[in-house]
Amino acid sequence: MKLYEIASFLGCTEIKDSIEITGMNTLSNAVSGEISFLSDSKYEKELSDTNASAVILPASKAHLLPKGVVALESDEPYMSVALLSKHFAKPIRSSDISPVIGEGSVIYPNAHIENGAVIGSNCTIMSGVYVGAETVIGDDVILYPSVTIYRDCVVGNRVMIHAGSVVGSDGFGYAHTKMGEHIKLYQNGNVIIEDDVEIGANTTIDCAVFGSTIIKQGSKIDNLVQIGHNCVVGEHSILVSQSGLAGSTTLGRNVVMGGQSATAGHLSIAPFTTLAARSGVTKSIMNKGVYSGFPLMEHKLWLKMQAKLAKMLEA
Amino acid sequence: MKLYEIASFLGCTEIKDSIEITGMNTLSNAVSGEISFLSDSKYEKELSDTNASAVILPASKAHLLPKGVVALESDEPYMSVALLSKHFAKPIRSSDISPVIGEGSVIYPNAHIENGAVIGSNCTIMSGVYVGAETVIGDDVILYPSVTIYRDCVVGNRVMIHAGSVVGSDGFGYAHTKMGEHIKLYQNGNVIIEDDVEIGANTTIDCAVFGSTIIKQGSKIDNLVQIGHNCVVGEHSILVSQSGLAGSTTLGRNVVMGGQSATAGHLSIAPFTTLAARSGVTKSIMNKGVYSGFPLMEHKLWLKMQAKLAKMLEA
Amino acid sequence: MKLYEIASFLGCTEIKDSIEITGMNTLSNAVSGEISFLSDSKYEKELSDTNASAVILPASKAHLLPKGVVALESDEPYMSVALLSKHFAKPIRSSDISPVIGEGSVIYPNAHIENGAVIGSNCTIMSGVYVGAETVIGDDVILYPSVTIYRDCVVGNRVMIHAGSVVGSDGFGYAHTKMGEHIKLYQNGNVIIEDDVEIGANTTIDCAVFGSTIIKQGSKIDNLVQIGHNCVVGEHSILVSQSGLAGSTTLGRNVVMGGQSATAGHLSIAPFTTLAARSGVTKSIMNKGVYSGFPLMEHKLWLKMQAKLAKMLEA
Repeated sequence: MKLYEIASFLGCTEIKDSIEITGMNTLSNAVSGEISFLSDSKYEKELSDTNASAVILPASKAHLLPKGVVALESDEPYMSVALLSKHFAKPIRSSDISPVIGEGSVIYPNAHIENGAVIGSNCTIMSGVYVGAETVIGDDVILYPSVTIYRDCVVGNRVMIHAGSVVGSDGFGYAHTKMGEHIKLYQNGNVIIEDDVEIGANTTIDCAVFGSTIIKQGSKIDNLVQIGHNCVVGEHSILVSQSGLAGSTTLGRNVVMGGQSATAGHLSIAPFTTLAARSGVTKSIMNKGVYSGFPLMEHKLWLKMQAKLAKMLEA
Repeated sequence: MKLYEIASFLGCTEIKDSIEITGMNTLSNAVSGEISFLSDSKYEKELSDTNASAVILPASKAHLLPKGVVALESDEPYMSVALLSKHFAKPIRSSDISPVIGEGSVIYPNAHIENGAVIGSNCTIMSGVYVGAETVIGDDVILYPSVTIYRDCVVGNRVMIHAGSVVGSDGFGYAHTKMGEHIKLYQNGNVIIEDDVEIGANTTIDCAVFGSTIIKQGSKIDNLVQIGHNCVVGEHSILVSQSGLAGSTTLGRNVVMGGQSATAGHLSIAPFTTLAARSGVTKSIMNKGVYSGFPLMEHKLWLKMQAKLAKMLEA
Repeated sequence: MKLYEIASFLGCTEIKDSIEITGMNTLSNAVSGEISFLSDSKYEKELSDTNASAVILPASKAHLLPKGVVALESDEPYMSVALLSKHFAKPIRSSDISPVIGEGSVIYPNAHIENGAVIGSNCTIMSGVYVGAETVIGDDVILYPSVTIYRDCVVGNRVMIHAGSVVGSDGFGYAHTKMGEHIKLYQNGNVIIEDDVEIGANTTIDCAVFGSTIIKQGSKIDNLVQIGHNCVVGEHSILVSQSGLAGSTTLGRNVVMGGQSATAGHLSIAPFTTLAARSGVTKSIMNKGVYSGFPLMEHKLWLKMQAKLAKMLEA
């Protein structure tokens, strides 16, 4: 899509630049040829360093762009991004190249591997599995029945994914009109699952809106866990059943999340932190420790709180 | 099934009426030829207006029926309904008519479309998808891999349902014997999903026991969400991951439910209400606002409560 | 695998015994030819009665073994068990015997029944279903689309399992290295589902590490429920949507668990106990009753607590 076409679509008809725009990305990750945006002022400082070719942003911020970067002025940049994202959404199928299956791999009948996918050696891809276009799967991987992996994902070696789990489904992102309608922000990123990860049954891991949702090496994820778009789960973390990570949460290595625990989005949790069952995290955790409750507190404080409440009950 | 056969099955052997009964329904929705019931006295006022041909009810209420409506007296009307419901349960397959597939729609191998189903135009029905008998799907719909839609459902235009989600599974309804056994109330209703709804991965939406569970236009539902039988989700509502609606809950338009929030059943929530993550609703909400906690309270009260608890902890 | 090979693998090179070891099991359940272990001192009293042929345990406990039982000394018995468990993991496929399908059963195209499986009569096995090796399914069973049942499971008569549910996925069990890595304890047990059980959509029931996870007769389980390895759900229990049982939890008969309620592991709950929605159980419940909250308390105390908190808020 040419830049002037995008500009015209967004109502910036004065832009006549005809360079080809290949995709959308964040200010810090965009490369030349990509379009970016500023919808939250906390990223304002990233404007001056962006390598994007054009940036959708409020008119008042246009002067902060480096020379040569085209400003696409919008009163509602996030809405503009959502409307535009559909044009960069990748089709479900996009390749004529038959999938490549490594030596010793067993593909069950009723599994569906899209063109452009690559499966390593000694894998077991069971019935009802779907592997999307351009997805790359390592060696010695087991995908149990009815696992779905969307397009463009990367799965490391010795990964096991139990039945019914979904990797790479669309993140939950919308811009909201004044009339209360929700305009889909197409999720064009992927999921990367590193080596030696095990994922339980009926767990869901959303793809990133841009870039990658990442499950790092050796992490173990139980059944019915939700991992939102753009999360990063650190090495050797443990996520117990029915826990959930809202979007853009980063866990350090060896974080343990108990059953039904959860985090809000856009926060980070220190390595070696343990979150008790049912705990709910709403702010970043800087210091490792054991935490409980909702609102979250140190576990020993939570115990003290329960003792005080029990006393109050007796009074 | 003839009315006298039903009567005999329920032990009302004195009824000899031979009209054909075509189904079961609620007092207010039943039409001529259907059978209804009174198991909860709060619906007693609906007796006088029912169009049902016969009603299962306690003997003491029979005099409240309009003239011409047959009373089927039962000491345990709900159990009678459960026992009878099996006879009206629809078979999984019931049509010889091959499914109709609209122009431009792509049906993957390994998808299964039952006879009697209708798929609109320009749809993508991916591998492992199941579309039940008599289900009608609109145009431009994407059903990602391993989505299951049970029989008799209706899916609007431009609906996207992500991998592994289930629409139309049986609602969770049983009558209980004195010995503690549970007798299934067969769920003979359906699910209606209106236009422009998006549903995440591994979410479950149960069919109605009678009538319809309805997801109204433009609503967006995240992953691993549970929606019980006979719920109505208002237009442009947002249900974040791992939230749950118990049966017969009605959300007004533009309700937002945070992650892991939930409602009890048989209640209604005012339009434009926001429920914070983890909140639990046990009573109807009449006034829009932002609510938190379990038990639920206004969010600003919840914040005050947390401040008071923190103070108590320090004391 | 010969005992001396196992001993050598675990570094106990002085053991030369060549008896064939057929599997691993708990101290109380192991039979002659099996290997067992002591990793938690609370099971120490079971050492003297074990029928295992060899036991992995700390050197200091070896003298407690009955005569003739070989001690395999380990400083980290649980880690030794995990490392060894892989050698006893059953392959996904292990039989050349075509599945046996009973009279009147309908198997949809795109269902996959492994060799060695047995399906009873008058069953409906819908599209996308997977039935593992050696799994035995009774009569009049309905498996809705994309249900997965792993190998070695047993499903009783008149069982209904709704779409997307997973039975027999690996329990969530690992031994942890000093470097913070997690070594999988292969889950070699199964799931037994007794007669007249109904299981909702996208629910997950893990297989036992040894022995069986058991869902007893007449229990009803809703959608998106998690049942960990080695749980026992008593007869006629009711588990409402999004509830969860951690591993080795035992429910007595007619236990009711409300929506989003959960239990910690290794505890038992008295028959006829009701757990309110959202309640969280961390200790065994000896006396039946109605319980609420997290931490759990009698429901009437919970109501009193809420009244006191409301008063505190007003102050």
